[in-house]
Amino acid sequence: MITVHHLNNSRSQRIIWLLEELAVPYEIKRYERDAKTNLAPAELKAVHPLGKSPMIQDGPHTIIESGAIVDYLIRRHGHGALQPDPASATYDEYVQWLHFAEGSAMLPLLLNMYVGRLGDAGAPLHPRIESELENYLGYLNTALSLTPYLVGEELTGADVQMSFVGELAKAQGKLAAYPHLSAWVERLQARPAYQKALEQGGEYKFAK
Amino acid sequence: MITVHHLNNSRSQRIIWLLEELAVPYEIKRYERDAKTNLAPAELKAVHPLGKSPMIQDGPHTIIESGAIVDYLIRRHGHGALQPDPASATYDEYVQWLHFAEGSAMLPLLLNMYVGRLGDAGAPLHPRIESELENYLGYLNTALSLTPYLVGEELTGADVQMSFVGELAKAQGKLAAYPHLSAWVERLQARPAYQKALEQGGEYKFAK
Repeated sequence: MITVHHLNNSRSQRIIWLLEELAVPYEIKRYERDAKTNLAPAELKAVHPLGKSPMIQDGPHTIIESGAIVDYLIRRHGHGALQPDPASATYDEYVQWLHFAEGSAMLPLLLNMYVGRLGDAGAPLHPRIESELENYLGYLNTALSLTPYLVGEELTGADVQMSFVGELAKAQGKLAAYPHLSAWVERLQARPAYQKALEQGGEYKFAK
Repeated sequence: MITVHHLNNSRSQRIIWLLEELAVPYEIKRYERDAKTNLAPAELKAVHPLGKSPMIQDGPHTIIESGAIVDYLIRRHGHGALQPDPASATYDEYVQWLHFAEGSAMLPLLLNMYVGRLGDAGAPLHPRIESELENYLGYLNTALSLTPYLVGEELTGADVQMSFVGELAKAQGKLAAYPHLSAWVERLQARPAYQKALEQGGEYKFAK
């Protein structure tokens, strides 16, 4: 049985969603952010020294890092679902999106969040943050003007991994200029497995 | 023939190094950072709309994103070199490091760089940045106290992908407390293929 170490309002929600899409059995162990600091609780460090959510356990194996978890679940438990044929060039595009999410697209969104805490003192950094956001969100919007999902006509792990980029951009009020990206977020959130995962995962403020 | 679109003093240096380790033929197309802004030049957008280095071209395929490029070159051109057997659990650890580099470990280093530009105005963010750096660098140091390379006795793509984390941490003066991590950076930089790649790539201030 796979255990998802799940933190409320976090990137681990997409792991529960992926397991629902794959129809792989799992159990959830819940953790709550500190009410004051909004950080993950120290008890996550007992599972893995980095103490970050998401983490999963699968028998003797502990896997961390969203992109690696998405790849692992699909590769080891997907029976070919939710990924292109590994021999195809489309598979390379799929891997690219898996890395692009946390390796590039999240950076200006996280900078926006952190630097935003400085108020006016952070102003010198915002032009660069905004131009990077426009670069990434515009690129995504163009990609999603061509196909309903990131690598074609069907959902893959790339959409699951990238979903948090769309959801966080939406929560930061950045999607108005990107209709194809907005429609994709709504398309993902309307899926039965997404809705089922919300019921299982509990509080997730990025589903709105 | 593989083309590496290479920006001086950037993450693309490790792609040249990887190609030297794999002994795969390649050519370099060079780009120079803007002397004033330190940003990549607009001409990179002609290769891929995001305009970021590294990018590679392999026949009709353009691949972006460091982790995806490392994975691609080893998977499509490595003939089994520099990665564990895909059927092994060690392979899952390898994929985890490929994602961990840019998905987690780079974030506090990049925050340190950006927020550092604000001078004293950025002070409220530094305690969190420093605690995250200690979390990640301490974890890496412990991993490298057990084996000379990240997934065992031999170099893999995980070391190539993670090398920039060690090099940037060193450039930021953060390695003094982490002897195993420091020794690993030196071990990587002493490899003949690393040195050959430096000759090919040109200016790279993180090799010191």
